[in-house]
This record gives sequence, C-alpha cells and structure tokens, in this order.
Amino acid sequence: MRLPGRAMATFRLALIQLHVSPIKSDNLTRACGLIREAAKQGAKIVSLPECFNSPYGTKYFPEYAEKIPGDSTQKLSEVAKECSVFVIGGNFLPSSFLAVIITVLYSEYFLCLCVLLSMKGSIPEEDAGRLYNTCAVFGPDGTLLVKHRKVTYCRVGLGICYDLRFAELAQIYAQRGCQLLVYPGAFNLTTGPAHWELLQRGRAVDNQVYVATASPARDDKASYVAWGHSTVVTPWGEVLAQAGTEETIVYSDIDLTKLAEIRQQIPIFSQKRSDLYAVEAKKP
Amino acid sequence: MRLPGRAMATFRLALIQLHVSPIKSDNLTRACGLIREAAKQGAKIVSLPECFNSPYGTKYFPEYAEKIPGDSTQKLSEVAKECSVFVIGGNFLPSSFLAVIITVLYSEYFLCLCVLLSMKGSIPEEDAGRLYNTCAVFGPDGTLLVKHRKVTYCRVGLGICYDLRFAELAQIYAQRGCQLLVYPGAFNLTTGPAHWELLQRGRAVDNQVYVATASPARDDKASYVAWGHSTVVTPWGEVLAQAGTEETIVYSDIDLTKLAEIRQQIPIFSQKRSDLYAVEAKKP
Repeated sequence: MRLPGRAMATFRLALIQLHVSPIKSDNLTRACGLIREAAKQGAKIVSLPECFNSPYGTKYFPEYAEKIPGDSTQKLSEVAKECSVFVIGGNFLPSSFLAVIITVLYSEYFLCLCVLLSMKGSIPEEDAGRLYNTCAVFGPDGTLLVKHRKVTYCRVGLGICYDLRFAELAQIYAQRGCQLLVYPGAFNLTTGPAHWELLQRGRAVDNQVYVATASPARDDKASYVAWGHSTVVTPWGEVLAQAGTEETIVYSDIDLTKLAEIRQQIPIFSQKRSDLYAVEAKKP
Repeated sequence: MRLPGRAMATFRLALIQLHVSPIKSDNLTRACGLIREAAKQGAKIVSLPECFNSPYGTKYFPEYAEKIPGDSTQKLSEVAKECSVFVIGGNFLPSSFLAVIITVLYSEYFLCLCVLLSMKGSIPEEDAGRLYNTCAVFGPDGTLLVKHRKVTYCRVGLGICYDLRFAELAQIYAQRGCQLLVYPGAFNLTTGPAHWELLQRGRAVDNQVYVATASPARDDKASYVAWGHSTVVTPWGEVLAQAGTEETIVYSDIDLTKLAEIRQQIPIFSQKRSDLYAVEAKKP
C-alpha cells in the first residue's frame, strides 16, 4: 500500500463501537461487515473494542476462549487482507498490564504496534492450557503481526482498558516514538463518566500523542454495561470525535504534521529533566 | 497547633487568587490581608499565586528580585506566625523544574513540602548574583521551612506553573507519599482554557491526590494576562472548587479519608507493574 505525498503524514483511523451479543459467530460477522464499511470510508487502521466477540466478564472466558491462530483471528486476518487495512483485534476481558511488546512493519508505511498481553485474557486466547487476554493485530496482507520489525512511519502503542489508568505505559510508548495510542476498552457506568475521557485527554496532552479508545456499544441488558463513547483525542487534548452509546463507527483523520507542530509549540520532550527523573521500562 | 480526632484527616486549604499590581508593597499588603481572611475562615494551608508580588514577565525580574530572607519573605513569615497557618509563598516568574526537594515539619501535624527552585526565578530571589524563581514556604511559627524533617500527617508536593506539564514530577511526589500537590501558576488565555483544568484533573486521577492551583487574578491590561481559575481537584478528578477571573479566595476542605477510600477502590498503586516500568528520581 503506497501512501504518496501528504498522505504519509495523515491517515484515517476507524473505531468500531460494536454491539456485542452472546453469539460469537454473529459478533464476528458484524465486526467484519463494519471493518469493510470502515475500509470503504478510507480507514487505514481499524480497531475493534475490548471483548468484541464475547460478552464482557471472566465467567464467559472459558466458553469463548480460542487459540491464536483460531476462528476469530482467521476471520480478522481474512478481512484485513480483503480490505487491505490494519486491524486491531480488540480483546475480550479486562486485562492488566504490559507483558509483551511487539513491533511490526507493513509495506510502504510502517506501524509499530506494541501489543499487550495481559495476565488473564485473549480473544480470549487459550494456549498451553493458560488463558490470555490478547489483542491480535493484523496487517493489510492478513498477516498476524507479532514480530519486531523496522519502523519509519507512524508508531502505534496499544493498551487494553485498565491499562489506560497507568501513565507509565503511555510514557514508555511516547519515549519509543509512538504517535498514536489505541486502547480497546470497556469502562462501566461509574468509571466511564468519571474517567474515560479524562484519562484519554490526559495521556494525549502529557505525551503529545493521539489517543483513541474503542468500546463495545451500550447494552443495558448485559451483565456488564459498557460506557460506550469510543473516542479520538488530539495531542492538544481536544476530543476530535466521540460516539454515543449505540453501535457505530468513529472516524478520525490522524494528522502527524499537527502532532509535530504541537510538539514544537510546547517542547516538553526536549525540556524533560532526565537528569532529575525518568520513566524507565524494565523489559523488554 | 493541635488537630484532634477527625480533623487529623481533614483540613482546609485556601488559594488566594490575587490581583497583582506593579506596586510591590501594595501586593504584599493585600496578600497579607487575604491570608488573614483565609485564616479566619479556618484555612490551615494558604497558597499565593505565581508572581504574587510583581507583574508576570522576565523583564520585571531584576527590579522586583530580592534576597531570601528579605522584605517579602519577612512579611509572609510574620503573617504565617500571626495567623498560625502554613503559607505557600507563590513565586514570580515562569519556572521550569525540580531542583531541590525539601521536606518540613511543624507542630502536631507534619507537612512535607517539596519545594521547587527553578533555574531562573524567585520571589524573585537574588542570591550570590544569580536569580531564582523560588516558592518560599512558611510554617505557623513564621519559620522559613527549608530542611528535611519528619513526616506523618499530610504530605504536600509543590510545583510552579509549567511544572504542571511534567507528569513525572507528580508521580515522584506520589511515590514519596504526597497527598496534595499545589502549583502556584499563571497559564495564559491560550493554554488556560486548553490545559489548566485538564492537567490538574489528570495529575489528580493518575496519582490519586488532591491537586490545587493558585493563579493571579485576570488583569486584561497587564502585559501577560493570566487565566485565573484557581482550582482544587479531588483524587477522583472532580473539580471541588474553582474561581472565576476576579480577585478571590478559593476554599476547599481536603479530606484524606476520602483519598484513602479512592486508593482502595481503584488500587493502581499496588497494581503498578514495577517489574515492567518505573518512574525514578535521579536526585536527591
């Protein structure tokens, strides 16, 4: 995929705020349909929400867990290839922290995806008898992207839901050159109105990056009621686009030129006093 | 000063949003009057804004700079003693970073004040021919608090204006047990509406601390027009109190019990993955 001229600094992101039912195959079919719709609208990166193919809650995990590669990842891989887009495969269960950082490359432009594998989850993924909350990422050729490759275009850092509360993770991504952080997540009706938007805007301004969240759509009958409000925030902290609670696709044009201007305007990166403090990654 | 029973976990903070004129003696007189008023209303800690005794701008610095101790600090010391309150003496010019951390003790309750001395400023302070942007702090006995002492009650971290943009500083304060961060500051009419409240709410939620800012009052005729809006934010990220643009005092009751409840409710401190990342102070 070639992105000539100015397009090198601008691309379209789409967040799919999916209505998640208890029927996995329906969820997958609808997710793939919305990915196709987003691609038609020019999106280059499409993110599904947390728990996009199963209801939200640990009790659903054993039933919905599958291996990677498996049915869900196979379908995401196919649709990524068919539409020639990057797909951030959301995930299923509330996760916690950074476990693996992987970076990836595709084609003419390069994407650094730092994928978090939590202690407990996956799409849900079952591997060697353990369950993981995994956020699988697919390149426009359908490849599951899991290896460190070269990076030159836009770097994307990835977290899952509760990870959003940990400033350090975003700081490490920013240190490593990420310009967009994507958090598939599902806040609830308490933490949603209190912190969902605030945390995104805070991460964005503190690290001068775009921040995006993809939530499941609101389902008042579900055992866990998600806040919805999938959002994209600029590096200046403005809400660029935000969904309501319904199933929908949120589009935003990510402009890396604007990001560069903001970093020049308020040069906090060059003015950080690394002689006095630092955020350090312990691994890898 | 004894703070019996529940009062040990609750105290009143007052932020003085001072109208700053070019006449230093007037500024000092009015500041002292408002400190007396705040003490009458039960405040235990009173903060003046950034640049409380001189117009805001480096060009004013040589004229207004003075030694510490000097006239301004003498008056603040006297009023702190007279009213038996802690006084955070604001400062004069936009500063940058952490240079010295000092912690202090007074009487029955203990206050840990981590005072920032920037590269360039003071009340403005002139010492050995160099100028510093200093935020002097006085105990209820009038003592200029500059030495490390024991800490058991409430810990207060102190930054100046632009310091608010550096998440690491707040993170280090939180690591060291601070429960309240106070930033005398003067954002302008661009950065004020965009980031003043957001940064405070972000620091508060990320570190589960109270955050307070004390700004000069708005003066549309000044060469630098301050945003005003002195604010207090809870550890949940709520705006507890906020001034408009006029000269006023903002009061808030700081409730450390509520803080403890929030830290229990969302235990991000115990769940930080220090094996994966850490914010580290390089000194002291």
